[in-house]
Amino acid sequence: MELHNYSSHLLEKAVNEFAKLPGIGKKTALRLVLHLLNQDEADVSNFGESIIQLKKEIKHCKKCNNISDTEICNICTNPNRAGNIICVVESIRDVMAIENTHQFNGLYHVLGGIISPMDGIGPNDLSIDLLEKSILENKIEEIIFALPTTMEGDTTNFYLFKKLNKYEVTFSVIARGVAIGDELEYIDEITLGRSIVARSVYENTLSQ
Amino acid sequence: MELHNYSSHLLEKAVNEFAKLPGIGKKTALRLVLHLLNQDEADVSNFGESIIQLKKEIKHCKKCNNISDTEICNICTNPNRAGNIICVVESIRDVMAIENTHQFNGLYHVLGGIISPMDGIGPNDLSIDLLEKSILENKIEEIIFALPTTMEGDTTNFYLFKKLNKYEVTFSVIARGVAIGDELEYIDEITLGRSIVARSVYENTLSQ
Repeated sequence: MELHNYSSHLLEKAVNEFAKLPGIGKKTALRLVLHLLNQDEADVSNFGESIIQLKKEIKHCKKCNNISDTEICNICTNPNRAGNIICVVESIRDVMAIENTHQFNGLYHVLGGIISPMDGIGPNDLSIDLLEKSILENKIEEIIFALPTTMEGDTTNFYLFKKLNKYEVTFSVIARGVAIGDELEYIDEITLGRSIVARSVYENTLSQ
Repeated sequence: MELHNYSSHLLEKAVNEFAKLPGIGKKTALRLVLHLLNQDEADVSNFGESIIQLKKEIKHCKKCNNISDTEICNICTNPNRAGNIICVVESIRDVMAIENTHQFNGLYHVLGGIISPMDGIGPNDLSIDLLEKSILENKIEEIIFALPTTMEGDTTNFYLFKKLNKYEVTFSVIARGVAIGDELEYIDEITLGRSIVARSVYENTLSQ
């Protein structure tokens, strides 16, 4: 059904605000708003306030550009993390994904995007200067590129390498290959081809 | 991926608030919150405020229980609408759906739910007294039951009929049958059976 004929402008306004969110259409927006109307006023107020407060008070870490409640985020200030290795990621979601693996104990650098001419995103839109500043001011030994394995990710890797290559740092890139649990017949040719070229010596612990 | 390891409590709080909405999981909530973080502060503030304002200021029409910005909604106050016929619906969404058909020019009554013992919803949770008040105070000639064609809808129809039957009002129920465009072979037996029993005289305009 089409949605006009709202019996309330307040309702219409709230529905339109929700419908601006990605993946939320008018019908879903109406469902969400009517759900909120059935909640306690205090709960709805908390919801609204948490959104306003989020945008007003949240900060980007001045070292790594991660989202933070403080000037420097709790990963950068953690003395137990290796300060000489930086993992470069596109967004905070990638930080959370890598943290969930418990396989990395260094620092991050959140670029805030990747170079994508199609979307009008160039190097100047990314926090590359801040990354360079980190390299200059700290004893960084390794930069890990953990960007998407897409054309845009590869372009960004190449750009960063060209720009930062002059520093005495090792550059590495996360392993690409067949994901654990995948059946070979369903894997795209490029991934499968690369996984053969980049094969490693067999060890019994590999897939554990 | 699991979501813990939030780098910000404000972020975590906003994600948790979004994840309380129906059909929104933690991952979707994070996507929506990160989208909001990329918007202008004024836009995000508008979004939050519209939610808070909605719950604080919205009213239920004192005649029909529809959502309204005013004491009496704009359908009830419209002098061009037939005041002697009331269409009983479950929720405001049904009002909007029927309004979109442009086939009804009477008034509505929004029950705010239907009788559903499984969900703990009884007659006292619905705005039935208000409907009775409407019948007593106005010259109502027909009550149309436009509730879902489910067990709960049928139960509610029956309850309303038993309670309001003492008044001199015609009770009707919306037509049930094969939806326009449906192929017979895919229709459930009950609907198809009823549509044969409740067949009407063929007129050339029927499916127009």
